[in-house]
Amino acid sequence: MDEIKQITQKITGVDFKLMDEAQKRLDNLTKPRGSLGRLEELAKQIVGITAKENPEFKNKVIFILAADHGVTEEGVSAYPKEVTAQMVYNFLEGGAGINVLANHIGARVVVVDMGICCDLKPHPLLVIKKINYGTKNMARGRAMTREEAVKSIRAGIEIFENEFKREINIIGTGEMGIGNTTASSAITAIFTKKPVEDVTGRGTGINDEILENKVMVIKKSLSVNKPNPSDPIDVLAKVGGFEIGGLAGIILTAASKRIPVVIDGFISSAAALIAFQIEPKVKDCMIASHVSAEKGHKVILDYLGLKPLFDLDLRLGEGTGAALGINIVEAATKILTRMATFKSANVSERKK
Amino acid sequence: MDEIKQITQKITGVDFKLMDEAQKRLDNLTKPRGSLGRLEELAKQIVGITAKENPEFKNKVIFILAADHGVTEEGVSAYPKEVTAQMVYNFLEGGAGINVLANHIGARVVVVDMGICCDLKPHPLLVIKKINYGTKNMARGRAMTREEAVKSIRAGIEIFENEFKREINIIGTGEMGIGNTTASSAITAIFTKKPVEDVTGRGTGINDEILENKVMVIKKSLSVNKPNPSDPIDVLAKVGGFEIGGLAGIILTAASKRIPVVIDGFISSAAALIAFQIEPKVKDCMIASHVSAEKGHKVILDYLGLKPLFDLDLRLGEGTGAALGINIVEAATKILTRMATFKSANVSERKK
Repeated sequence: MDEIKQITQKITGVDFKLMDEAQKRLDNLTKPRGSLGRLEELAKQIVGITAKENPEFKNKVIFILAADHGVTEEGVSAYPKEVTAQMVYNFLEGGAGINVLANHIGARVVVVDMGICCDLKPHPLLVIKKINYGTKNMARGRAMTREEAVKSIRAGIEIFENEFKREINIIGTGEMGIGNTTASSAITAIFTKKPVEDVTGRGTGINDEILENKVMVIKKSLSVNKPNPSDPIDVLAKVGGFEIGGLAGIILTAASKRIPVVIDGFISSAAALIAFQIEPKVKDCMIASHVSAEKGHKVILDYLGLKPLFDLDLRLGEGTGAALGINIVEAATKILTRMATFKSANVSERKK
Repeated sequence: MDEIKQITQKITGVDFKLMDEAQKRLDNLTKPRGSLGRLEELAKQIVGITAKENPEFKNKVIFILAADHGVTEEGVSAYPKEVTAQMVYNFLEGGAGINVLANHIGARVVVVDMGICCDLKPHPLLVIKKINYGTKNMARGRAMTREEAVKSIRAGIEIFENEFKREINIIGTGEMGIGNTTASSAITAIFTKKPVEDVTGRGTGINDEILENKVMVIKKSLSVNKPNPSDPIDVLAKVGGFEIGGLAGIILTAASKRIPVVIDGFISSAAALIAFQIEPKVKDCMIASHVSAEKGHKVILDYLGLKPLFDLDLRLGEGTGAALGINIVEAATKILTRMATFKSANVSERKK
């Protein structure tokens, strides 16, 4: 835990003084005050997070963490678990949705095996941080040991630190793991105290019957494991996933280095929720890109007090919503740093 | 009118056959069916509009049409009318919000004087289509003659045709004109038959007192001029603006050439409403980028049946929302054209 504590102690929150200065600059740009709405709020938040007057986003990184889930034994997904590994190859070959969108926004992707069931063929772009060959079936006992939970968060710290050597200015969270909406719903129910039915959705597109089973499986996991809501490591160990722990580690480390974190969908937000339970100040560094079609997602965002930038009915994960969100954050920041002022452009200010 | 009729006759609606094929392709990409939500719908719509299987957006153009409004005499704006010309210089020098966002998405801007009160200093990037030195005060009579209204739409046709020679794959609408939310509210009230109060907002940021006056001025304009809602040219002439007529011409011409039109905010949408009244089929080529903080905007979008892509509380105009919208449309289209299929990536399909 020491390594995690070292990181969380460095999370200090936003720089209010620079945010005030950014607000003054925004008010002097050639536009009616506040007329760029949330773009202006975003620009100000980015200044506060980064503590830089003129933030730039040359290095945008989407972390895609993949792992398998033992709970798929219970028939909670529409896809076979082999798809986790297959999609990782797809990420590495550049054919997935997130590759297209990362390319579109000029971001690089970092693909990590956090705990896929099989050993993957080596690939120069594949980072291996395998905690185990998938989690255990949480409907029959804990998904992982407490040591594995800590190890998954630590792996996230290492992944971030390693990539940070190549420079990072902003990150997006992404994931892949057949069965991981089931784990995320369990995590959401525990921390938000909402009924399982209210935080459980159709994932990749299951029918009514499988959804009913999924709700039952989650309820069973909670009653079998009795996770302690005031101990986020316990929750992660009992009903989480290796990719979720890894993302929590990445989010905390980014915040400790004043790097803005653009959160993707439901699973990413479950990881953000774990990170928040470990250190609430991490929230200041988070930007919610979108609210997904998966109904537990809105519950987490409301709980964290994060307002999504858009709602395009996405439910793919992988970091796809985060990629679009990063693009909007970058646009917002350019407004602050590149627009002319009333004075520099010789434009008259308002009458009164 | 002949020139306008020639254009409208070429507007044929979307290609349903190609849209069906696009849907089949989308369903074979390596993602759960429909999991990219509105991005998938957008990609399909773009195929339908362009009648191209693999649309690309190398040439993105934001048209910014500027003109003055005689109704500013009535004290309806927070800014002096000189700001119209000053902001045009700002557009030409690259310092405005739209310059920053157009740059961000890789679009070029075309800046047009449609009827600014003064003669502007020549600039290599400035297109001059001046219909007159501002409209007349619509609270005391028609804003322009019927001939001027037709001329403004024709100017829009010419602007598009001229720029089309350099190639255009998608456009965004933009405008600048102190007083033009007043004209847009009048247009909206006429076509949607909503009370003036329900379609009139704070524009650049007026207070309660000026807002009350603005509503009164619009009501007076309607009762003085009695525009005929079944004659869009009459409406444009009596309570419109030169930039609004020009944008209507651009929108119609784009549709006639199967070029997707990304609509910006309230004033752009008032122009879209005029275009729609001239030829309803033009709607198929429109994509609403955002819903602005200006309350009449939602009324127009609902009337046209357009669902905005995002709501970032923007109210600047200039094409700023359209720029961000174009970026999302481009991302959506790349999903269709660049993602791997289940077969090509060797990914298993769903169990049932």
